[in-house]
Amino acid sequence: MFRIADVRVTPILISDPPLLNLQGVHQPYTPRTIIQVITANGAVGLGETYGDTDYLRVAEAFGPRLVGTELTVNRLTAEVAHCTREVEVDHLDNTVQAEGLRGSRTLTKITASVGSAFEVAVLDALGHELGLPVHVLLGGKVRDSVSYSAYLFYRWAEHPDPGEPDDDWGAALDPEGVVAQARRMARDYGFTSFKLKGGVFPPEQEVAAVRALHEAFPGHPLRLDPNGAWSVPTSLEVAAQLEGIAEYLEDPTSGTENMAEVARKTSLPLATNMCVTSFDEIPEAFATDAVQVVLSDHHYWGGLRATQDLAAVCRTYGVGISMHSNTHLGISLAAMTQVASTIPGLRYACDTHRPWQTEDVVVEPHTFSEGAIAVSDAPGLGVELDTDSLAALHQRWVEIPVRRRDDAAAMRRVHPEWVAPSFPRW
Amino acid sequence: MFRIADVRVTPILISDPPLLNLQGVHQPYTPRTIIQVITANGAVGLGETYGDTDYLRVAEAFGPRLVGTELTVNRLTAEVAHCTREVEVDHLDNTVQAEGLRGSRTLTKITASVGSAFEVAVLDALGHELGLPVHVLLGGKVRDSVSYSAYLFYRWAEHPDPGEPDDDWGAALDPEGVVAQARRMARDYGFTSFKLKGGVFPPEQEVAAVRALHEAFPGHPLRLDPNGAWSVPTSLEVAAQLEGIAEYLEDPTSGTENMAEVARKTSLPLATNMCVTSFDEIPEAFATDAVQVVLSDHHYWGGLRATQDLAAVCRTYGVGISMHSNTHLGISLAAMTQVASTIPGLRYACDTHRPWQTEDVVVEPHTFSEGAIAVSDAPGLGVELDTDSLAALHQRWVEIPVRRRDDAAAMRRVHPEWVAPSFPRW
Repeated sequence: MFRIADVRVTPILISDPPLLNLQGVHQPYTPRTIIQVITANGAVGLGETYGDTDYLRVAEAFGPRLVGTELTVNRLTAEVAHCTREVEVDHLDNTVQAEGLRGSRTLTKITASVGSAFEVAVLDALGHELGLPVHVLLGGKVRDSVSYSAYLFYRWAEHPDPGEPDDDWGAALDPEGVVAQARRMARDYGFTSFKLKGGVFPPEQEVAAVRALHEAFPGHPLRLDPNGAWSVPTSLEVAAQLEGIAEYLEDPTSGTENMAEVARKTSLPLATNMCVTSFDEIPEAFATDAVQVVLSDHHYWGGLRATQDLAAVCRTYGVGISMHSNTHLGISLAAMTQVASTIPGLRYACDTHRPWQTEDVVVEPHTFSEGAIAVSDAPGLGVELDTDSLAALHQRWVEIPVRRRDDAAAMRRVHPEWVAPSFPRW
Repeated sequence: MFRIADVRVTPILISDPPLLNLQGVHQPYTPRTIIQVITANGAVGLGETYGDTDYLRVAEAFGPRLVGTELTVNRLTAEVAHCTREVEVDHLDNTVQAEGLRGSRTLTKITASVGSAFEVAVLDALGHELGLPVHVLLGGKVRDSVSYSAYLFYRWAEHPDPGEPDDDWGAALDPEGVVAQARRMARDYGFTSFKLKGGVFPPEQEVAAVRALHEAFPGHPLRLDPNGAWSVPTSLEVAAQLEGIAEYLEDPTSGTENMAEVARKTSLPLATNMCVTSFDEIPEAFATDAVQVVLSDHHYWGGLRATQDLAAVCRTYGVGISMHSNTHLGISLAAMTQVASTIPGLRYACDTHRPWQTEDVVVEPHTFSEGAIAVSDAPGLGVELDTDSLAALHQRWVEIPVRRRDDAAAMRRVHPEWVAPSFPRW
């Protein structure tokens, strides 16, 4: 077998536009952690995960323990768990509010989120050693391209301070702005399904935006995701207004019990990346038919094989599966595409933040054709590390002290009185 | 990628001792199907599955369709399903009573049972091409040996007709005979846990046998499996007598509803390879807590990746997993060992018929050490085809017209009035 000779864990900051959500607004920079697993033969495997300090610390503690081991993945989660417990005592911070967007915050999920980056890197390295794409190591692709959904955001035109990252998308704060954003997404990337991040404005305004999208793109799949902002009655009002228009509602309300109540009273499917985010949350949610689509995030479910496990559980219970996206770079987009290509019955386009991230650490960032990414048959993930870019983004991390995702703090730069809302907001 | 240049499907008959069960007695010969997948580079992958005529016909229809394709497995089940539907119209025989021992009999399961043999053969071939053991293709082993349980049977000393296969185990028809058999199993193979195939004698006699085993092997895990022969009240009486003695009861009664009723009223865990034998049977069984251990048979669950899928579902729902065994040769024992080595939380010793099968189609049959088999790190499954043996066992298939497992017919050779019992028998 192939042995691991070196492991590198590199924190970086990537620029992010002023995208709005329930918690606040994206910061100008957000942390990510980049993993390199290098074999004795010189093959390099790449992984990527969240960059908040606690994730980074676990990754930095675990990385050296991989050196000298073989390129296999089934033991990773258990091994990372040791680090999580050891690092946890001093450093875990359970107060990060922005992470409410990722559902519950548990040691299990931090373990999985860190482990996933190493799993992806090991699979990538193994693919390079063998000359095989990662999908073959996952049993082989069942499709040749993976469809993604345009991720529409209410947003400001720019961050508040001079010199912060900017772009030419302009503001989107009403139905017209959302439709204009969708038209550009469709034109430039070919997306044919659209997801609007909601929870920003009162529900009637967001319903109006989705209706405007429906008029502009009749027959196209549309989704609205307020990150659990609504009460059960509000969710049901929105559902009634969007039946026949939306493909599904994503996390209209918070908690499995509330989701189940909404699900019982609407024909619209409910999707989640908040109330079912780890295996231990599945039995209750499936028993109560609280969700009809689980949006897997391979980071916090624990990697690509864990995503296949989740797909098996969903398939067994007749629950749909698709993919959640958090601000990510090309390594994770490649990983998402590889695993998605292996999952039978993937009927919904996956989420991606991709068009919003203009920076990357891979030499050739992915391109969308008709809203889809072709499944690479090149060895490993099919991406190559841009070492100059990695160095520059790490240098930014050294220079700028952003160490966690905190959308509420970013919002307070403009609205000093802002506090992240309690649930339900509406 | 590696392309498949040739596929060979070979029916064989293997000898089998006169082992008793609810349906009757094992025939002197039982059919198996051996698969060879040969790549353009000359690598050979081996697979093995049931040999009853309908399985064989589906395998023979599917084999040629693999030629020219790549060595990947995720599409196999869907592709075999086409053959199953096409062959089904004329040839499927839903009346084979002996198959009651394998649970429900559906197209899905026949598809899975045939597909599994091709999946194993493809993984074996891929392993040979890459120089990697199958477990690495499944994500890597999490243990270095796999424990098996001694499979004790009530049995006759010999088959009724002269010239039929024989051995020196002698009869076992009472507690003393069962204990003697267990002692030889422990001495020769090192088994430390014991399963008795029940459903042969009235329950009190089988309870007496398990109690005798408990006295002979105090503290060792013991199991009793009457293949669903008992009513709910009988199951509960047996359970009451074996609490603190048996590790679990396997299929004491027939059907998920009855199993659930028994499970509610005993502290003994219930295991099954009859009421949960495919993914569509899981939700009802888990919702009613009908089974605490699922015994996977990688043949009828659909292969090694499907076994990992099943393990993921069980893990998610807190249900135990172990492995069922049907009369098998070294190819399937290698496959069972490879996949079992990758499954976290495998707490129960797996079943194997192995000591009862003295013939094999691999050059070096497996040996047990302390009741366990070391996980091979050699390429593929780590077994090599004995082509002479395969040819001889195929020649036997040509000469002897046994085309399906039929334990009731075998029993009628001695007891002409025998009919397979209706449920519950006791």
